[in-house]
Amino acid sequence: MAAAAGLFTTLGYTATSTTMIAAAVGLRQPSLYYYFPTKESILSRLLGYSWRPGLACARALRTSGAGPDARLFALLAVDVESLRRLPWSLGALYYLPDAHAAPFAEMWRERDELRDEYAVLVGDGARDGVFQVDDPAFATDLVFRVTESIAQTHGEAHGRDPERFAVDTAQHCLRLLAARDPEGARATGLALRASLKATKK
Amino acid sequence: MAAAAGLFTTLGYTATSTTMIAAAVGLRQPSLYYYFPTKESILSRLLGYSWRPGLACARALRTSGAGPDARLFALLAVDVESLRRLPWSLGALYYLPDAHAAPFAEMWRERDELRDEYAVLVGDGARDGVFQVDDPAFATDLVFRVTESIAQTHGEAHGRDPERFAVDTAQHCLRLLAARDPEGARATGLALRASLKATKK
Repeated sequence: MAAAAGLFTTLGYTATSTTMIAAAVGLRQPSLYYYFPTKESILSRLLGYSWRPGLACARALRTSGAGPDARLFALLAVDVESLRRLPWSLGALYYLPDAHAAPFAEMWRERDELRDEYAVLVGDGARDGVFQVDDPAFATDLVFRVTESIAQTHGEAHGRDPERFAVDTAQHCLRLLAARDPEGARATGLALRASLKATKK
Repeated sequence: MAAAAGLFTTLGYTATSTTMIAAAVGLRQPSLYYYFPTKESILSRLLGYSWRPGLACARALRTSGAGPDARLFALLAVDVESLRRLPWSLGALYYLPDAHAAPFAEMWRERDELRDEYAVLVGDGARDGVFQVDDPAFATDLVFRVTESIAQTHGEAHGRDPERFAVDTAQHCLRLLAARDPEGARATGLALRASLKATKK
């Protein structure tokens, strides 16, 4: 995956062949086909890495009885941590014209679904008064810009491992939303994250 | 510029010729050369649009006697408004491998300078206690991610013209920094912005 990401972003998607991807990792093309039947399936998978972990987390959180502020904290912590752990940056892939062609439409729908999960949490929090925002859709946009930019460019770690980077990002995003009880949301959000991790194991 | 941005991002920088750019706007190649001596000068200019207005504003604000929170508000309002007014999105250009080659190094240095201007304001605000942030460099990173993502992808306007979009973004960023007096910073920041606009005229 990392080799394919590197080739797609430097040579372009069209100019990269599956033979080149196979060669980059010391496989023959038929062996690569065992894992990935098409070049499309590789780019789909690469795109999916940026929002699938967040989406899985958001879906698991739906049945939680916790408030929207704690659930948003947990979602941000899980989503951003997974983005920081990716061994490649997705920026160039996001903006590849080829990545927006028909075969990848399903992947972009998943991105929109993740965005919707964020929007529902921010909207519910605004309705309940735990976030003091006039326009939840606008505020969601800014929060989602932060998480997507982390998928696109890793940037500096600021001395933080992915987990701490994510928790600190979540905390700043709750401030951006003028959370009424950021400390409570953080404590419950961290407990939610821990229970999700335990369920996964 | 818009025609060149479109060609660079769909065909790639290398595959785009100055003849193609000239043809796209109904000019002959020698006429295009009158404005832009090289293809490099076009990409340089395109990149520059994303941070030059912010940089000019930050430099003008240095001599202002206003506090760092008000100056940051003004910088965000001017920077984001100019990014929202660009008739193209810069995302794909940011991630063009060619855009990171030696001829464009000066442009990326300007980006770093703008980032440094943000860092100084956040750092001064933290020192003065007008922003309640533990790690000003980390918080600057998040704010700068918001502004750069606006340069990269316009996204939804949320019913806002560029000026209001920018002011609302500035307000949310001040929250992210846990500004002690967001209303005061906003009022002084708007006055600073108005005086910068008046000077420019």
